Amino acid sequence: MTRAVRLALLGCGTVGAEVVRLLHEQATDLAARIGAPLEIAGIAVRRLGRDRGPLPVDPSLFTTDALSLVKRDDVDVVVEVVGGIEPARTWLVEALRAGKSVVTANKALLAEDGGTLHDAALDGGADLYYEAAVAGAIPLLRPLRESLHGDTITRVTGIVNGTTNFILSAMDATGAGFAEALDEATELGYAEADPTADVEGFDAAAKAAILASLAFHSRVGAADVYREGITEVTAADVASAKAMGCTIKLLCIAARGLDSTGTESVSVRVHPAMIPLSHPLASVGDAFNAVFVEAEAAGQLMFYGRGAGGSPTASAVLGDVVAVARNRLAGVRAASESAYAALPVRPIGEAVTRYHISLDVADRPGVLAGVAGVFARHGVSIATVRQAPAAGGPAGRGDDAVLVIVTHAAPDAALAATVEELRGLDIVGSIASVLRVEGSL
Amino acid sequence: MTRAVRLALLGCGTVGAEVVRLLHEQATDLAARIGAPLEIAGIAVRRLGRDRGPLPVDPSLFTTDALSLVKRDDVDVVVEVVGGIEPARTWLVEALRAGKSVVTANKALLAEDGGTLHDAALDGGADLYYEAAVAGAIPLLRPLRESLHGDTITRVTGIVNGTTNFILSAMDATGAGFAEALDEATELGYAEADPTADVEGFDAAAKAAILASLAFHSRVGAADVYREGITEVTAADVASAKAMGCTIKLLCIAARGLDSTGTESVSVRVHPAMIPLSHPLASVGDAFNAVFVEAEAAGQLMFYGRGAGGSPTASAVLGDVVAVARNRLAGVRAASESAYAALPVRPIGEAVTRYHISLDVADRPGVLAGVAGVFARHGVSIATVRQAPAAGGPAGRGDDAVLVIVTHAAPDAALAATVEELRGLDIVGSIASVLRVEGSL
Repeated sequence: MTRAVRLALLGCGTVGAEVVRLLHEQATDLAARIGAPLEIAGIAVRRLGRDRGPLPVDPSLFTTDALSLVKRDDVDVVVEVVGGIEPARTWLVEALRAGKSVVTANKALLAEDGGTLHDAALDGGADLYYEAAVAGAIPLLRPLRESLHGDTITRVTGIVNGTTNFILSAMDATGAGFAEALDEATELGYAEADPTADVEGFDAAAKAAILASLAFHSRVGAADVYREGITEVTAADVASAKAMGCTIKLLCIAARGLDSTGTESVSVRVHPAMIPLSHPLASVGDAFNAVFVEAEAAGQLMFYGRGAGGSPTASAVLGDVVAVARNRLAGVRAASESAYAALPVRPIGEAVTRYHISLDVADRPGVLAGVAGVFARHGVSIATVRQAPAAGGPAGRGDDAVLVIVTHAAPDAALAATVEELRGLDIVGSIASVLRVEGSL
Repeated sequence: MTRAVRLALLGCGTVGAEVVRLLHEQATDLAARIGAPLEIAGIAVRRLGRDRGPLPVDPSLFTTDALSLVKRDDVDVVVEVVGGIEPARTWLVEALRAGKSVVTANKALLAEDGGTLHDAALDGGADLYYEAAVAGAIPLLRPLRESLHGDTITRVTGIVNGTTNFILSAMDATGAGFAEALDEATELGYAEADPTADVEGFDAAAKAAILASLAFHSRVGAADVYREGITEVTAADVASAKAMGCTIKLLCIAARGLDSTGTESVSVRVHPAMIPLSHPLASVGDAFNAVFVEAEAAGQLMFYGRGAGGSPTASAVLGDVVAVARNRLAGVRAASESAYAALPVRPIGEAVTRYHISLDVADRPGVLAGVAGVFARHGVSIATVRQAPAAGGPAGRGDDAVLVIVTHAAPDAALAATVEELRGLDIVGSIASVLRVEGSL
């Protein structure tokens, strides 16, 4: 009989406990698929005494000394579900340098300092897998890493944060404002007590960095990602989107293309955007995740599923565990990080996008000409102008009107400068809403 | 410099020519991703003289002797895009036994006799990859083979044939009948001159067999798949589906569960079915493919993209080429076929499904009781009954009425027996439509 492949588990919260449970329940199947049984060598936790419910595991396996555990000779694979930068980085770097394969769900660490982990994996001749770090259970990174390696990916557009998608879906369904929808999400357990990482887009930005790195064979870090959260999205924005046949989603977008100097580069950003209801991402509701991939030969692809939660995340972790365990038994390691293209990251000002702008204007002759002139001065072409009813009266009556303008694609900097100049115009009362637009209207 | 990885290409039609083009165009990127350049060692075709347009390849590489080509010492990888059972099987078995890695898009061969190929791969210590065989460019087989290996897949439901999906989408959009929609598909190049393999479900059945084998770690062949095509789907069926808030799709369904004796087994079938518009597969239109996967831990996943065409298929082929080329350079092979579970296949009679039945009945007291009695005798529970307007008049007037019945889930054999008995009932004028129903209404 082949010897067992032995796992060190770092962390035993929701995901860790589910990994333990699945390892136990599916032991026979996992052993058949790997060719050897999996055994838990130890479980590192912060406090030993905590009640973790009934877990099918020998209590003597728990330890608070993660660093010693990951270096133990009888450990083959380290599974990290702790999260955060430190001490996770130290543990994983030590594990990889000691030749242990690592499976991690730690998107923050990968986005902050993935290069250090990849380098350590190369040094130690070990595998580094992280399918669970982006879009939970959706098999997404392996297709990007492997299946599409014969193709050129041009763009990745994703809904990768379940909390914000739940909030925006609720705002769309009920007309509620952000604060009210956040309260509902918190009550239902979709938002954490401190929702900053989700609603300010930090979580999505980390995932965007990981996706961009894989899609474009380059090292993209969290700091390279332009980021706007959803806290400024108003009920009026949502209503305005509806009037356009659109919905608002927090998108992560990674696109390759030429910058203003003609250099091949990538643009990576996270921000709320209007997308038409006909776009495949528009119907991704509640806490679901989906990632839309465009490649030169493959065309349009979409991957859809649950992005978070103990079971879905544990499914992704165990899929990676099976892969690295097989590699160890075969005495091989998977292909290393592929960062040969080393494309530079463009600043947000050079991202090419479209704006939807809603303006309160004075209702008198020459106003549209004045407004249009501002767009023209910044080289921004207008796609559509619509006059909507002003608050308090039908369109065109009284002293005020609302102009809703959608632009053609232009550099973000030119669009931002246009909005800035509009703010100073005396014919413009206020700018009610500025939103980027993605997809074909 | 590392020596080149050399490919033998079998077939140079639409897909083969696109493979040649992409190998040329993306040579630098492919070499960087693999760690060695790819070279074409030879291209086997049926006739040398045929005009293949301008291909970026030395004409002296063409040969009609495929069998000699695949065994040549300077060939590392054999790419087969010929299709059909023979001579492809002979070529690939010879190649695998000679230790050449094989990348194939040949779903018919894999479904007919995949076991022989897998055995030959094991004998020769070679890789066998076939991502392009199902759902074209959609990275689907690798996720099933690898990403979900830590999970238990319970059900796979797919739209895997673009021709029939185009036809059914057209029938749904325009109210056209099957023959008219087929003509349109033929005109637009979505259906072949002889559309039998598509419209009778043979193509989808081959893909269902491949998906079931991977999802359930068992050997399932084309002969194990229950198959009904779409030629009997009428405009009235489509209208009836619409009235129920549904659309009709040709689905391939592979599900695991207990059979009547309590044995764990799989049910694999291809047939048209009504699905509610709220189901993620309902909005998959035109010639697109999508596969919906349900797994115990991961929950619901969906994969969406182009299922056919030269470029998408070539993208999948090249993704596999990169993988096997890397394996060869590393001196390893990927995990073999996983068929350890060896689950038996249930006959269609034991598949658990629901029926939508539309009956022309006499409009007089006691008819519903008589019809309901037939369902009860076969142990089939009725979910909903709706009286619809009979042709020629509003519901309930005149001599005839139409009863639309949707059942709860029951064994297919009981449902079929119910329909059979209804046909013989004198209160039933005719059975206008019988369709299976999938998804929650």
